[in-house]
Amino acid sequence: MRMVDIIARKRDGEELNRDEIEYFIKGYVAGEVPDYQAAAWCMAVFCRGMTPEETTHLTEAMAFSGATLDLHDVAPFIVDKHSSGGVGDKTTLVVGPMVASLGVPVGKMSGRGLSFSGGTLDKLDSIPGFHSDLSIEQFKRQLRDVGLVVAGQTHELAPADGKLYALRDVIAAVQSLPLIASSIMSKKIAAGADAIVLDVKVGRGAFMETLEEATRLAELMVQIGRRLGRKMTALIGDMSQPLGYAAGNALEVIEAISTLHGHGPADFREHCLDVAAEMLLISGAAADPEHGRGMAATALDNGSAWAKFQQFVAAQGGDVTAIEDPDRLPHAPFVEPLRAPRAGYVAQVDAREVGHAVVDLGGGRAAKGDPIDPAVGVVLAEHGKVGAQVEAGEPLLWVHGRTRESLYAALTRLADAYRFSADPVAPPLVYQVMR
Amino acid sequence: MRMVDIIARKRDGEELNRDEIEYFIKGYVAGEVPDYQAAAWCMAVFCRGMTPEETTHLTEAMAFSGATLDLHDVAPFIVDKHSSGGVGDKTTLVVGPMVASLGVPVGKMSGRGLSFSGGTLDKLDSIPGFHSDLSIEQFKRQLRDVGLVVAGQTHELAPADGKLYALRDVIAAVQSLPLIASSIMSKKIAAGADAIVLDVKVGRGAFMETLEEATRLAELMVQIGRRLGRKMTALIGDMSQPLGYAAGNALEVIEAISTLHGHGPADFREHCLDVAAEMLLISGAAADPEHGRGMAATALDNGSAWAKFQQFVAAQGGDVTAIEDPDRLPHAPFVEPLRAPRAGYVAQVDAREVGHAVVDLGGGRAAKGDPIDPAVGVVLAEHGKVGAQVEAGEPLLWVHGRTRESLYAALTRLADAYRFSADPVAPPLVYQVMR
Repeated sequence: MRMVDIIARKRDGEELNRDEIEYFIKGYVAGEVPDYQAAAWCMAVFCRGMTPEETTHLTEAMAFSGATLDLHDVAPFIVDKHSSGGVGDKTTLVVGPMVASLGVPVGKMSGRGLSFSGGTLDKLDSIPGFHSDLSIEQFKRQLRDVGLVVAGQTHELAPADGKLYALRDVIAAVQSLPLIASSIMSKKIAAGADAIVLDVKVGRGAFMETLEEATRLAELMVQIGRRLGRKMTALIGDMSQPLGYAAGNALEVIEAISTLHGHGPADFREHCLDVAAEMLLISGAAADPEHGRGMAATALDNGSAWAKFQQFVAAQGGDVTAIEDPDRLPHAPFVEPLRAPRAGYVAQVDAREVGHAVVDLGGGRAAKGDPIDPAVGVVLAEHGKVGAQVEAGEPLLWVHGRTRESLYAALTRLADAYRFSADPVAPPLVYQVMR
Repeated sequence: MRMVDIIARKRDGEELNRDEIEYFIKGYVAGEVPDYQAAAWCMAVFCRGMTPEETTHLTEAMAFSGATLDLHDVAPFIVDKHSSGGVGDKTTLVVGPMVASLGVPVGKMSGRGLSFSGGTLDKLDSIPGFHSDLSIEQFKRQLRDVGLVVAGQTHELAPADGKLYALRDVIAAVQSLPLIASSIMSKKIAAGADAIVLDVKVGRGAFMETLEEATRLAELMVQIGRRLGRKMTALIGDMSQPLGYAAGNALEVIEAISTLHGHGPADFREHCLDVAAEMLLISGAAADPEHGRGMAATALDNGSAWAKFQQFVAAQGGDVTAIEDPDRLPHAPFVEPLRAPRAGYVAQVDAREVGHAVVDLGGGRAAKGDPIDPAVGVVLAEHGKVGAQVEAGEPLLWVHGRTRESLYAALTRLADAYRFSADPVAPPLVYQVMR
């Protein structure tokens, strides 16, 4: 077998078989297939696509390209959750404790933010002392003892994906459906998930901008998971405006804490209940989605989810007094509102612009490895969300900035992110569930 | 400007501008654009194509990526000829001396054979003592003094093309029309051609198998050349069967010598007269194609082309006694005929199979840099060409082999290259001329 022939077949739109895909992935990880051949292959995939069967072979080859996690010695059934990324998406911070408090262990590997989209690890890092670089032994011990652990992706799992993702980033081959789907799924499979709930976001604040694209991605990932013997559910939800009110690391932790106390923005709470219900359903803890929602709501109301969050933060070295008294979390020195330029209904809050505003404030990364400021960000007003009726001069949001200059630059940018209309607009929170 | 954005634009089928293409080529030659980005770009071009304007920018950027040759101090007007490659194509060996003997200087950079297609330099190397690795100074001096020089491509000219071609070879991106056209044309432009006669071959023994493909390639190269201010003519000729009788290095030199003496296969002689006429026409030495053909025929008949060939071989160190007495050229120890299995008309002689038979005999290269045996090859009988009427048992061709084993293997392979029919078939020698 020769890599050049495999590239030629993909270039001509032919379907690669399992042996060919394995040959490529093994050779690439071993350094026998050079980056330039992998690059040509990725671009051929970008242009010609892959069938679900090919994508499954790719997922499997990447999942087993390095170490894999078997968590069955510490938990009988592993349910994982994956968000395709968005602005203000702090769902894991609430759903993890809810589900874990109901006896379903959640052991999650999360990522960092890039571009306009935040990352769970960056949010958790705003809690003083919290650390996410756990060994596999620490990960397993905490999963067994606490039932909830969130760690960084280790390079030992699915190394082919890490290598291929870094390459795709510099050759303009990121936005390929089969490459995105296999990248996500290979990490989940390598991390030992028996069941996966996909939280696919669609809209300006997501990587998939159209419902059609998002649906195709969700369907493909569900198909891959099932072909590989995993239980799969996918939710497709709106990300045209930010989820909840807060975007920015400590600000999102504060909002998660508020939600764990039974408060928090309505849309975000609903979304958390939906995701938790699916996780409870897929793991067999709930009989049906309504039952799952009820269980999850109870976990919020009776304080057990909050208690689990405290236990989880403590286990990973976080300062529990800082989450008990969020005033002790990082705060930005300057806070100013953006005021409605006129009366009307809020028709649009461009989530991508909000995300970029957070990056510009220092709360996100323009490039991998950039340092971030945990304190800065944006908090929408209740009347700053789509559908709200506002009076002229009423605050739409508050910007939390490190400097006055960055704050005013963000205000200018955010003014353009808003559209108003005479009639209210009510975007659906969840477009679709695939079970 | 960032390479990743240039790749993304090409990936999306957009038209790159001159600055973007120059940025890529300059960066690639300087080592600032890595091979993996160049590979992704090539594959994007393969899949999405390029407009003639983009291809012209690419040609120009590659042509001026290193040193360029200006030959106007030794010759007022430089006409070059390029064959797209084929089996038995020894045209340069006859056309060069013809045209040069008529006062039109021919300074050519030629290549070596690869796969089923032979190379002019390999053919000339079968003349004892002949060498083609000339310095630019030697090249110019001989062009001035003899009017005819054939040298190897120097790495100083169009280094971007050399680097990109080597990359395309290992990433399955060779067969892309804009990449082929820009590769050929950049070398011609860098080598200082004022006018170029393209000899584009079509059929099983050529890289372009269909007339449509060959026509598109020819049209594209003509367009590129004209956009860059060069005079251009293209001939599109048949390469379904070998050109002339001989395929194999010394065997082709012998056939060229015979043709220079006014003999040689009819199809090959006609083709040489056609190409020479176009070179004489484009350089202004002939008033029209018929006039050019007449001049060229005279150069054969009165011995001036042959005298120029002798002078040229001597100037490049070749043993003139070996071309005066071709028995002194390398000869293979074993020669056996392939006999017609039945009576009828020859309907097909698959030139690609003949080319591969020569490679298997040791007369060509499976990989770059392989050594070759100058003596071996195949010589068709007059009755072994398409259209000939043969009796059962009559020789179709002779195989010249280094060993009995390789000879019999070639005979077996070549038996399959023939098809016979009840009716004669007369393939056109030239399909089309674009002036």
